[in-house]
Amino acid sequence: MPKIEYPDAVIELVQELKALPGVGPRSAERIAIWLLQHPKASPATLSEALLKAKAEVQACETCGFFASNDGCVVCEHPGREPVLCVVEQATDVLPMERSGVFKGKYHCLGGRLSPLDNVTPDDLRIGGLMARLERESIEEVILALGADVEGEATSNYLADLLRSRCQVTRLAQGLPAGGGLEHADALTLARAMEGRRGL
Amino acid sequence: MPKIEYPDAVIELVQELKALPGVGPRSAERIAIWLLQHPKASPATLSEALLKAKAEVQACETCGFFASNDGCVVCEHPGREPVLCVVEQATDVLPMERSGVFKGKYHCLGGRLSPLDNVTPDDLRIGGLMARLERESIEEVILALGADVEGEATSNYLADLLRSRCQVTRLAQGLPAGGGLEHADALTLARAMEGRRGL
Repeated sequence: MPKIEYPDAVIELVQELKALPGVGPRSAERIAIWLLQHPKASPATLSEALLKAKAEVQACETCGFFASNDGCVVCEHPGREPVLCVVEQATDVLPMERSGVFKGKYHCLGGRLSPLDNVTPDDLRIGGLMARLERESIEEVILALGADVEGEATSNYLADLLRSRCQVTRLAQGLPAGGGLEHADALTLARAMEGRRGL
Repeated sequence: MPKIEYPDAVIELVQELKALPGVGPRSAERIAIWLLQHPKASPATLSEALLKAKAEVQACETCGFFASNDGCVVCEHPGREPVLCVVEQATDVLPMERSGVFKGKYHCLGGRLSPLDNVTPDDLRIGGLMARLERESIEEVILALGADVEGEATSNYLADLLRSRCQVTRLAQGLPAGGGLEHADALTLARAMEGRRGL
């Protein structure tokens, strides 16, 4: 007796959904069936949104944030302060922006130095960063990279490169807001102690 | 200063993804960014798979399982035994089939009786079930509905309707395979005791 299975088109859809991050085989099946059966599901609209996003969105050539065909909302705004915040990923811009304390421009590296993964300075948008410092009048570069080994290595590399051209700073390390001492690891406490400020 | 946000096309894609079952706002954003940035992502293929599945897959008119344009793999197979397994949803067919103990045909009701949700017998594929019993020579109808209140109510309703036409049975209730007594609730134990079998 032949094995009963979903029609091929359903199996193909499940395969595609399974490739998405955070979607396992069971979720993929559930989503596929929902898309085909649920009255509120609209696979055609999702399909269109995918094509539209792929066609209209690309990385801004200057800063690396997401730009539409109309241009980049960050780079094209004239009122931003002449301070450059260097982040690892384009997705780091919005969290920084939501904090509300930074009014300057951004530069997304597209990653961080990681010799083990064969990520060298040539793989990051460092050339573009140097070109911006030549072209734009930047007073300060704030390195807002991760506080892990690779983020620190990238920060140190960039600081050596940029120190002669403009002021270079990095984000403070210390206790996270709302976190008590009992949840802080030894390294975080050491950094918080080193970076203590007068009151 | 205007608020920095993702381009509209990204926001629209996130909206569509957020509507999928089990995908929250953060997962939706993560999936959208992954689709746009990751070298392995292929939004066009996913888009095509969605349209293809929507166009090619519909419910089989006879049994309610998923049928492609080529027909229904269950109904069109001549070797299946003249026993009909009634399940709630089309998605219940594959788990039953994977158990390997059933070689007959299926009938998917498309739900279960639930007066509180305004689901009446007219909303289920019961007319189609009666028509099949007239048309096909069925020796036994196995009610494989859920063991909850609504599943039981639906089973009882169908049993009353079908008892005069053919043999009607239902799935056994009792301890799940691999489950110990300490994990079984009182009702499950009561059902297991009632349904005990000679050794």
